Amino acid sequence: MDGCSIAIVGATGAVGSVFLHLLEERNFPARSIRLCASERSWGKKMKVSDRDLIVEPATPQLFQETDIVFVSAGSDTSRDITPIAVDQGAVVIDNSSAFRAKPDVPLVVPEINGEDLTQHAGVIAVPNCSTAPLVMVLNPLNHMTSIQRVIASTYQSVSGTGAAAMEELRSQVQVGSADSLPTPTVYPHQIAFNVIPHVESFQENGYTSEEMKMVNETRKILHLPDLQVSATCVRVPVMVGHSEAVNIEFNEPVDLQKVREVLSAAPGIKVVDDPLRNSYPMPLDAEGIDDVLVGRIRQDTSNPNGVVLWIASDNLRKGAALNAIQIAEQLLSRNLLGKLTGRV
Amino acid sequence: MDGCSIAIVGATGAVGSVFLHLLEERNFPARSIRLCASERSWGKKMKVSDRDLIVEPATPQLFQETDIVFVSAGSDTSRDITPIAVDQGAVVIDNSSAFRAKPDVPLVVPEINGEDLTQHAGVIAVPNCSTAPLVMVLNPLNHMTSIQRVIASTYQSVSGTGAAAMEELRSQVQVGSADSLPTPTVYPHQIAFNVIPHVESFQENGYTSEEMKMVNETRKILHLPDLQVSATCVRVPVMVGHSEAVNIEFNEPVDLQKVREVLSAAPGIKVVDDPLRNSYPMPLDAEGIDDVLVGRIRQDTSNPNGVVLWIASDNLRKGAALNAIQIAEQLLSRNLLGKLTGRV
Repeated sequence: MDGCSIAIVGATGAVGSVFLHLLEERNFPARSIRLCASERSWGKKMKVSDRDLIVEPATPQLFQETDIVFVSAGSDTSRDITPIAVDQGAVVIDNSSAFRAKPDVPLVVPEINGEDLTQHAGVIAVPNCSTAPLVMVLNPLNHMTSIQRVIASTYQSVSGTGAAAMEELRSQVQVGSADSLPTPTVYPHQIAFNVIPHVESFQENGYTSEEMKMVNETRKILHLPDLQVSATCVRVPVMVGHSEAVNIEFNEPVDLQKVREVLSAAPGIKVVDDPLRNSYPMPLDAEGIDDVLVGRIRQDTSNPNGVVLWIASDNLRKGAALNAIQIAEQLLSRNLLGKLTGRV
Repeated sequence: MDGCSIAIVGATGAVGSVFLHLLEERNFPARSIRLCASERSWGKKMKVSDRDLIVEPATPQLFQETDIVFVSAGSDTSRDITPIAVDQGAVVIDNSSAFRAKPDVPLVVPEINGEDLTQHAGVIAVPNCSTAPLVMVLNPLNHMTSIQRVIASTYQSVSGTGAAAMEELRSQVQVGSADSLPTPTVYPHQIAFNVIPHVESFQENGYTSEEMKMVNETRKILHLPDLQVSATCVRVPVMVGHSEAVNIEFNEPVDLQKVREVLSAAPGIKVVDDPLRNSYPMPLDAEGIDDVLVGRIRQDTSNPNGVVLWIASDNLRKGAALNAIQIAEQLLSRNLLGKLTGRV
């Protein structure tokens, strides 16, 4: 029997549609694909690799017939569905923040800590869409010279919120720059021609949960529990592609040329850094590609041990669907689907 | 004789029009107002305080009849015109970067270092539009506890580039999100639905001149030549209003409540910091007001001596025209127009 059986929960969302596209693009060995979404989409037809698939409810029976379930439908849905799927013997690759902090749930970027997959107990978490590109850049650098501290400011696109947010931005720019806009419903404020320093909910310490994800997930993925991290996460009127300005402090001065070499050699990273020719990472260029783009690499004027750089990455790919599929590919190649053997 | 005679060079630009608006709003004591711009605008009529004024060439004769010349037409024009105006006995308040680094040119934010105006030799420089709001926030905090280091990431609106950039963004969003856009002419890349980590020109050290202005001007205005500063300056698809994510390191831990009190008491600053009610600074709210908005004030998770905050400010006001007029007001109230006495 060739390949595995998969289900996608949240198939009709922004991440879901990229997911389906990537399955085809990567020629993922899926024997069968089941699509699930919320009730209003049941019965909807979607074309996947020339097959018409019907969106259906996520039931225990469906999970029982599935090897890998990709869940990308928000934390609440993840919390509801995951235990059921795991009970039915499926492995869940979850794109939400619901399980990322749990000690028994590997939080995995395959290029970095694929090894952690060997510890899974049925659930594997995909990192936050701003954390994934950041750790992709930090990991090879930390192997070169120990990193002590990271300060990141993000410029996050609306697709990170979902398809409805993309529609909200589209409708606002069509109306014009200022007057008589429809009341925002996805964001608390107008996002067109504005930036909103508010991604996810505010915590007691004044950071948002998105910002604290960047602190905690970075530590977990890099296995650096004491790494000092601070983030400011900001929504900008961009459709797809998250960008980040990052100040990295090493425990000693580093050579910029070495930094460039290390990043150029790292899998999944593309150095775009020829500023005199107007070449640097931008979300428009990151959209639709797998690589995390990094550039504007320079010595930090405020710290002899510091390097400053700029990242742009497709938040729907490496920040979500791509990373999830890469995890599935590793589960297959490392033969880590556990209960699968007994079921096919 | 009431008031002084002023001229505005660059009257037809984005800063120029805000300038004229502010003269009226602040009831600036101008006995006469002359408008200058480049040749293609000569003869154009502009309404200022119910008077129709005609745009004219900037000539030595005009400067001879003028007490204060406001120049906001780019560095090249400033370099050409300023010596002529000063020769004719006028005081130049220059909005460009042409003279900011010169030791004999005061670089002034009146709330901070108005005292430096006493040293002027005919030219006074207005700080960069990202530097002005930053130092407005840093100065009162530095009086509370010494600041060691500052890391800023900016989210700068297109009006900082000028009226043509606003038109470029407007035309790009009208076309749509991706396809068949007109070739950008103001920026090297599409700005709509994008962010561009490139403001002004790149320097040898990999920073842009805009970023290095934030380093050098901050030190000069605050009289802190050793302050460690690093900036990443990014253009975002916003019409008016620059925002900044700022990490500030003090030489000892500071109390957040004290930080809030100090900022609330500082002139020209408004604390907007009630995140649970979705209240924080945003460029849309900063547009059209004089105050620098500051919020999202929190302890830095990556440094016990650090505070993180978020600023939004109207780059055409405190970042340019407002600060220039405030300088003129201080020159008048401190009787620092020098040669004026012999001319009226």
